[in-house]
Amino acid sequence: MNILIAIDSFKGSLTSAEAGEAAAAGIRRAIPDAQIEVVPLADGGEGTVEALVQATGGELISAQVTGPLGETVDAAYGILGDGKTAVIEIAEACGLPLIPEAERNPLKSTSYGVGELILDAVSRGARSLIVGLGGSATNDAGVGMLQALGCRFLDEAGEEVPQGGAALGAIRSADVSALHPDIKNLDIQVACDVNNPLHGKQGAAYIYGPQKGATPEVVEVLDSGLRNFAEVVKAELGKDIQEIPGAGAAGGLGAAFAGILNADLRSGIELILDTTGLEEKVKNADFVITGEGRMDAQSSMGKAAMGVAGLAEKHGVPVIALAGSVTEEATVLNDKGVTALFPILQEVVSLEEAMDPETARLNLRTTAEQVFRLVGYSSKR
Amino acid sequence: MNILIAIDSFKGSLTSAEAGEAAAAGIRRAIPDAQIEVVPLADGGEGTVEALVQATGGELISAQVTGPLGETVDAAYGILGDGKTAVIEIAEACGLPLIPEAERNPLKSTSYGVGELILDAVSRGARSLIVGLGGSATNDAGVGMLQALGCRFLDEAGEEVPQGGAALGAIRSADVSALHPDIKNLDIQVACDVNNPLHGKQGAAYIYGPQKGATPEVVEVLDSGLRNFAEVVKAELGKDIQEIPGAGAAGGLGAAFAGILNADLRSGIELILDTTGLEEKVKNADFVITGEGRMDAQSSMGKAAMGVAGLAEKHGVPVIALAGSVTEEATVLNDKGVTALFPILQEVVSLEEAMDPETARLNLRTTAEQVFRLVGYSSKR
Repeated sequence: MNILIAIDSFKGSLTSAEAGEAAAAGIRRAIPDAQIEVVPLADGGEGTVEALVQATGGELISAQVTGPLGETVDAAYGILGDGKTAVIEIAEACGLPLIPEAERNPLKSTSYGVGELILDAVSRGARSLIVGLGGSATNDAGVGMLQALGCRFLDEAGEEVPQGGAALGAIRSADVSALHPDIKNLDIQVACDVNNPLHGKQGAAYIYGPQKGATPEVVEVLDSGLRNFAEVVKAELGKDIQEIPGAGAAGGLGAAFAGILNADLRSGIELILDTTGLEEKVKNADFVITGEGRMDAQSSMGKAAMGVAGLAEKHGVPVIALAGSVTEEATVLNDKGVTALFPILQEVVSLEEAMDPETARLNLRTTAEQVFRLVGYSSKR
Repeated sequence: MNILIAIDSFKGSLTSAEAGEAAAAGIRRAIPDAQIEVVPLADGGEGTVEALVQATGGELISAQVTGPLGETVDAAYGILGDGKTAVIEIAEACGLPLIPEAERNPLKSTSYGVGELILDAVSRGARSLIVGLGGSATNDAGVGMLQALGCRFLDEAGEEVPQGGAALGAIRSADVSALHPDIKNLDIQVACDVNNPLHGKQGAAYIYGPQKGATPEVVEVLDSGLRNFAEVVKAELGKDIQEIPGAGAAGGLGAAFAGILNADLRSGIELILDTTGLEEKVKNADFVITGEGRMDAQSSMGKAAMGVAGLAEKHGVPVIALAGSVTEEATVLNDKGVTALFPILQEVVSLEEAMDPETARLNLRTTAEQVFRLVGYSSKR
């Protein structure tokens, strides 16, 4: 029996790889001769680097880059098993967790370190790049990143504008001719699950500015800066970056990647599934196991586990979902490819106890064991 | 697919029949053409009358009898579908719940109403009797019951002793010749899962007296009364009731049933399984579903669900257990015949929420549905 395990992380409790190994341990107790492959899973958000590195047998790299407020930070990224594809999460270089809450200020924070991270990857031979956009502390339209990569953004006096979202309004000209040559040929794919435009009421500043520390007044300044940047780019480079779906992701990094660096913005889970070659693995499986910490109606909206279920359904492979908890509406997931869905809770406990990694690991193992005792019995009949 | 459901009650939440119907509803959602039989289950304790009446298509009877402190109480019992077998729970006539906590006093409480209940059943044509012993408020060695049935227990003055455990010490002679003639021919089977002797440190008074309101001093009085009763019975009737395993059950009712009324004391679950003809039904099933509110290591010690699992294992029928909660050790149940075990909890909730009947019903239905979605898939392959 070939069993493929691709479980999303149990957020706050187990990584994807840990969850997968726990389920595998349970299955082995039920069916000792099962052929089990564990593929770490992610959705383009937190954990993407780790999942892809583990899934492809790649390596983790640590680089010193400029942090969101100009300090130096240690940022991890991955080189995948092919040796040619790098995967970065922009939050490693300019993420909210890098700044104490009281100091968060998108007028000042910069994505410069993201550019340095990309250069580091290229210097190690990366010819393709996968980018996770989640969790940025910035609203600089990716200008910092582009500057690190060689682009120039000048003010009225012909001076390079400083770092931070506050400077966007001063930009009068854009020059991308000095873009690092290796970057021009870099194939960049960006995991992006939002469709926001760059500026306006649905844009980066209005929608995501407040959670980055922007007051209503600051939001207006940032939004006006983004609009100015879009206008300069249109005038100077002939590109309309405002309406690219996802341009407003990560404080406008979406616009910089898609509009200036010619990256593809793609659904995070599709990108991950492609990269890990999951569809081929699904085809060859007798059972697919997926799951995540909490499965509910939302899970059907682009999340990793539902992506796996969709592939399994496409190829007629039964998929069993294991979840930390399941909301009442979750049986709708049966209609979206999930053959059967099992919460792993064994006893009445508090949320804190349920999320204790040892408890979650044991509950996952136990549930997988019981499910495959049943499968093993049924398939022997 | 033939599916037999025999789930114990989820105590404090669902009766056996309710739990069975919830599981059946879930299975029907997964496998609409399944042939499902629900057999209510009990272990000889609370719920036994209801389960047996429902399982055999019998009827519930209400009788007015003497309560534990002499008041009149309405006591329910059952006549099974054969019209000839009555089933009583002695707690209906002399149970602890009939007395406010402050008034509990085994020196005074009597099993007299149990005898009246038996006479009522016999008057309606009962020729066999099944008795559940749990929950008595008495420690009268069943003397009250025997008096109601015509036996006489006299003191030094040749007077009938009064009701209650305090009077046992005064008994000097026992006369069972006036026992009601229909009782002499009554086949009585008693569900009894304890092995206590009548008196002594492991006897009725020491072990069960305190939970019935006896102080240490009262326990000594009661124990001494039980010893006197055993001595009189031995001298007058030539029967040693002290060492009968279970003699000390229900304040000595075990001794009265087994020693004076020639009843069989049997494991509760075996008695129930026999009465419901469950073994035949198990043999013809493709799957057996059992379960209870809480499954743990204790469940393997004579409880109803484990009895069902044992029958299923004997006949090589897979048995799926559904439980309100499962303790960490519960996987040992796999070694005792349980093919697979699933807790029904879906989300982190409080114990009170988990035990809400609507929640428990929904969780049972959902779990049964998901389990049989998997079974249905596996058996189609």
